[in-house]
Amino acid sequence: MSRLSDISTKAPKELDKEKIKGETAKLVKRFDELQYLLYAESKHAVLVILQGLDASGKDGVINKVFGQLNPQGVQVTSFKAPTEEELKHDFLWRIHRHAPEKGMIQIFNRSQYEDVLVTRVHGWCDDETANKRFEAINHFEQLLTVHNNTMVFKFYLHISPEEQQARFKERLEDPRKMWKYNKRDFEEAAMWEKYMKVYEDVFQNCNVLPWTIVPADQNWYKEYVIAKEVVEALTKLDMKYPQIKEEAR
Amino acid sequence: MSRLSDISTKAPKELDKEKIKGETAKLVKRFDELQYLLYAESKHAVLVILQGLDASGKDGVINKVFGQLNPQGVQVTSFKAPTEEELKHDFLWRIHRHAPEKGMIQIFNRSQYEDVLVTRVHGWCDDETANKRFEAINHFEQLLTVHNNTMVFKFYLHISPEEQQARFKERLEDPRKMWKYNKRDFEEAAMWEKYMKVYEDVFQNCNVLPWTIVPADQNWYKEYVIAKEVVEALTKLDMKYPQIKEEAR
Repeated sequence: MSRLSDISTKAPKELDKEKIKGETAKLVKRFDELQYLLYAESKHAVLVILQGLDASGKDGVINKVFGQLNPQGVQVTSFKAPTEEELKHDFLWRIHRHAPEKGMIQIFNRSQYEDVLVTRVHGWCDDETANKRFEAINHFEQLLTVHNNTMVFKFYLHISPEEQQARFKERLEDPRKMWKYNKRDFEEAAMWEKYMKVYEDVFQNCNVLPWTIVPADQNWYKEYVIAKEVVEALTKLDMKYPQIKEEAR
Repeated sequence: MSRLSDISTKAPKELDKEKIKGETAKLVKRFDELQYLLYAESKHAVLVILQGLDASGKDGVINKVFGQLNPQGVQVTSFKAPTEEELKHDFLWRIHRHAPEKGMIQIFNRSQYEDVLVTRVHGWCDDETANKRFEAINHFEQLLTVHNNTMVFKFYLHISPEEQQARFKERLEDPRKMWKYNKRDFEEAAMWEKYMKVYEDVFQNCNVLPWTIVPADQNWYKEYVIAKEVVEALTKLDMKYPQIKEEAR
C-alpha cells in the first residue's frame, strides 16, 4: 500500500472536463435502468460506503450520482456520533441493521470505519482494539457478501488539504453553505497527518473487499469515477427481469 | 464429540428431587440479586441461547429460571420462521438486532442455529452453505463477546423420544396445553435421527463458545443445571455497584 500523500487528489491532466461530464450523464442514465433491474430481480443487494474527511464531498456524490435513481430502491444512512443505546452494543450493531435487503441500494455516509478512524485519531481506540475491529469488519463484510449476495463498494474521497481549506472558506462565505460550517472541522483538519495514517491502516487491514481511492478535488471527476465503477460492476451481474411463471398466468 | 444418543437425558439417579428443587430455589434467589447488579453496573451483557426439539421445555426454562427476575432487565426473543423482510437479509441480520445491550439479559428462544438445524433437516440448506454459516456464527458470537463484553450461554435441552411423545400426548389431553398442539410436531419428530445428526454437527463446528447439553427429561433437573451454570458464571464476574463519583456529590 502506497502512502496517501503519494496518490494524486486531482483528475489526470489530459481529461477534458466537459467530455467527462457528458460521460457521467450517460453513466447515470444507465445506472437508473440498472437500479430498476436490481429492484425487479431482487437477487443482489448493493452497499456503497462513502468515507472521506470533512468537506471531501460525500453529500455531493450522494446527490449527483445516486440522486437520479428511484428513491424507492435507494436508502441513505448517515452515521453520526453513536447514541447512548448504540454505545451499549458492539460497534457493528447499529451498522448491521441498515445492511441492504436484496433488490436495494444502501448508501453509508460514513460507516463502521469511523470506529477505526476518528476514534483512533482522538485516542479513544487503542491499536489492539483497532486490530480486533479490523478483523470484525472483515468478517462483517464477508457476511454481507457470502450470505446475502451483497455487492460492496468502498470509496475513499481523497482531497488535498488546500482543497479542504478552500471548501471550509466557502462555508464561511456562501449563505447556502453556512449551515455546514462547524468550528470543530478546523480542529479535525489540524490532525491531517494522523487521519492519513489511520486511513492508510484501514486500507492495509480491511482490504478483503477492495477500496477505491477517488481523487476528489474536482467534483466532476469524483462523480465520474464512482458512477463508472458502480455501473460497470452492476452491468457485469448480468441481471434479468423475472418472467411470469407459467402457473401464475 | 460423542453421539447425542450416548448422553443421558435424565438426572443422575442418586439425586434427590426435593433437595435439588430447594437448591434451585436458592440459585434463583441469588440470580435475582446478580441481575440487579448486572443492570446497575452495566459493563456486561448476557445472552442465553435455548435450543432443543419441540416439547423439550424451552418455554418452561424461561418461566422458571428467568421468570423471577425484574422484567426491566430481561428480554426474550422467540425466533420463528423468518419473515419476507428477514429473508431478504443475511441470516444473522434479524438475530443481531436483538443482541443484548450492556446491563441486560437477553434470552433467545431458538436462535441463529435454526438456520443450520431445521433448514438442514428439510434440505433447504446444503452442507456447503451450512459450513459457511457455521463460520459466520462463530464470527458473530466472537463479535458479541470481544466487542460488547457479552457472556453467551448456549443450552441444548436434551430429551428422549419417549419423553417427547409423552409431552405431545399431554398437549392433546390437557386443556391448558392444547394451544401448543401442532400436527406438524409429529412430522418433525419423525425426523429424530436427522435432527440428532445436525445438532451433533453444530456442537462440533460451533464450539468456540461451548454448549451445555442439559438432560431435560425431568424439568426439576433441567432448571437446576441451567440456573447453576448461569449463577456461577455471573458470580465469577465479580461485579461491583458503581459508587457516586466525587464530582457528582
